[in-house]
Amino acid sequence: MDLKELRKEIDEIDTQLVTLYEKRMKISEEVAKYKINTGKPVFDKERENAKLDWVKSQVHSEFTKHGIEELFLQIMSMSRKLQYQLLNKNGIQDKTSFRLIDTIENKKDKKVIFQGVPGSYSQIAMLEYFGEDVDNYGVETFKDAMETIKNQAADYAVLPIENSSAGIVNMSYDLLVEYDNYIVGEHILRIDQALLATKDAKIEDIKTVYSHPQGLMQCAKYLDQHRDWKQISLQNTAASALKVREDQDKTQAAIASIKAAETYDLQVLQEAINFSDTNSTRFMVVSHEPIFTIKADKVSVCFEVAHESGTLYNALAHFIYNGINMTKIESRPLEGRPWEYRFFVDFEGNLNDGSVQNALMGLKAETIDLRILGNYKKYEE
Amino acid sequence: MDLKELRKEIDEIDTQLVTLYEKRMKISEEVAKYKINTGKPVFDKERENAKLDWVKSQVHSEFTKHGIEELFLQIMSMSRKLQYQLLNKNGIQDKTSFRLIDTIENKKDKKVIFQGVPGSYSQIAMLEYFGEDVDNYGVETFKDAMETIKNQAADYAVLPIENSSAGIVNMSYDLLVEYDNYIVGEHILRIDQALLATKDAKIEDIKTVYSHPQGLMQCAKYLDQHRDWKQISLQNTAASALKVREDQDKTQAAIASIKAAETYDLQVLQEAINFSDTNSTRFMVVSHEPIFTIKADKVSVCFEVAHESGTLYNALAHFIYNGINMTKIESRPLEGRPWEYRFFVDFEGNLNDGSVQNALMGLKAETIDLRILGNYKKYEE
Repeated sequence: MDLKELRKEIDEIDTQLVTLYEKRMKISEEVAKYKINTGKPVFDKERENAKLDWVKSQVHSEFTKHGIEELFLQIMSMSRKLQYQLLNKNGIQDKTSFRLIDTIENKKDKKVIFQGVPGSYSQIAMLEYFGEDVDNYGVETFKDAMETIKNQAADYAVLPIENSSAGIVNMSYDLLVEYDNYIVGEHILRIDQALLATKDAKIEDIKTVYSHPQGLMQCAKYLDQHRDWKQISLQNTAASALKVREDQDKTQAAIASIKAAETYDLQVLQEAINFSDTNSTRFMVVSHEPIFTIKADKVSVCFEVAHESGTLYNALAHFIYNGINMTKIESRPLEGRPWEYRFFVDFEGNLNDGSVQNALMGLKAETIDLRILGNYKKYEE
Repeated sequence: MDLKELRKEIDEIDTQLVTLYEKRMKISEEVAKYKINTGKPVFDKERENAKLDWVKSQVHSEFTKHGIEELFLQIMSMSRKLQYQLLNKNGIQDKTSFRLIDTIENKKDKKVIFQGVPGSYSQIAMLEYFGEDVDNYGVETFKDAMETIKNQAADYAVLPIENSSAGIVNMSYDLLVEYDNYIVGEHILRIDQALLATKDAKIEDIKTVYSHPQGLMQCAKYLDQHRDWKQISLQNTAASALKVREDQDKTQAAIASIKAAETYDLQVLQEAINFSDTNSTRFMVVSHEPIFTIKADKVSVCFEVAHESGTLYNALAHFIYNGINMTKIESRPLEGRPWEYRFFVDFEGNLNDGSVQNALMGLKAETIDLRILGNYKKYEE
């Protein structure tokens, strides 16, 4: 047989598959109605496992066994999505504790904190997001920022979550899990690292360079040309500028912002020393209250999956089957459980969307410790 | 209708679905034979897109449109897997450049390097993997290690890739992409961080603590109780022990191994200060040669996906449909392309397995810049 004939046969099979699929989904709607009336849960693991065993027993090769199992995992998952959707329409839904508010940019009587000292990138990002006249102050550590928000001594905290060259800020991810604080906004700031020193210093004088570890990492290629310089990490870039100012030692340099040079009256020895000319940091705005606005279009969640084959894949299927666009996936180690992970997924949508509610109901039923970290407006230039 | 009747109807539909699925896969085998004879490529994007448009036009709701599209993406992907498998059987396969060897643990005339100074965890891991009598020396940076291997001035390098509490070592992932070096083994070392100081020091004397950034991170909870201590990062933990020995200043402490205390004649002020009592680091053994053994049971790959919805999910499908167990997924930013990522996946298998070859052929056709980073024996205690 030639390809054309084979494809014609395939087309005929596909016509039947489509008809059967639609018929099956119609019956799933009836099942949903039954479940609405009786309060029976959507997910029946025993029934699904029996079905998988049966379909596998019906086919003849190892390859088709795998294939038919995957196919039915997908079909049953879609049936569940449909049932969740109908449950939602009937008002039977898992209420999230999130509260819809008008706007979070309202700065009247709000206090905002950032991590670090004046001149830090966090402060610059905060001022760009909330405006120059917002009531604000710096705290020493990321943990202090989360603690202050938790105790409601301030309304919002601005913390870096990811750099476009260095990757994620692990501490921020871990603190989101440790604290019941929520992401309510994001801001992206272009990072131009500069080499700062005292007014009398020349490049040949430098022996030690101070910065935040990510600052040193972002400038690794530049620093590789100066291997005799000792690299020392401090809490943040602006703190390293402050140290150089205080020590007034011309062998010291700091990697920090041009704004930090102005703030601490230092000389810019070299501009733009970070290796990527598109280097940006994404900051999150964190609140103790689980709030979102109708304009929010990005959701962040995290969850664990059982330490079994295929569990991560099945979790991700909830996004796809609901037509939800995942924009990011990260993993972080679980404390005390070596080589097991918590997954962080960002996706597009609003907590009021039916599709988002379906995906979250499914994920909640089929993953471990699902948490909604926030629903907020995606940064746009 | 009650649930029992509805389920009976579903069972009848499923019987038909299974029959059609198996029939479709049989025809796919014929298609594979045709393609073997004509040398036509397996993946025909145009034909698949036309099919997806057609199936979507046949159903009536938005929900079933999404569902049927996903279902056919999966069915067509399975057909391709089957075709790749038959191509493989007929000797038409993508030869990887990997060479099968007997054993890599053969230490005769081999030179091994590690990053750091004597007493470092990398050295301890190296000695455990290759034995105490292996010819070895330390180099200054991770990059130096990769460069030395590339120039074949040494045969193997041992570098940390992941810590069970702190997460991945970004630099190691990035260097695997930058250099054409390959992972040929792995070793896991339990990390017990200790606080080291000069023989005359007391805990009250300490003002500054030195370590590698991951060392400081692993002991963050302990250091949080000593907020007055200045934390300074150095290249590695053993280098910080060396510094304390050289300075002979009782206000200085280092976070490093007990072995480093012995090596540099220091006092152990406090044992086990890392917060997890199951803290381990996974090391990789890297070679310039793409070699693997028949006992190798873990594959590491990396790839990029097009910046479109669903592309990551489709890439991961190649593992699942071939019955391959993914054990890890990580992402790292792409240089100069903010908020785009390269994905690193570890999975179980040997490059000689048919299923692994299928998955890699599929991934190569449907992702960007697929690289096989290595095939090696998984660490076992």
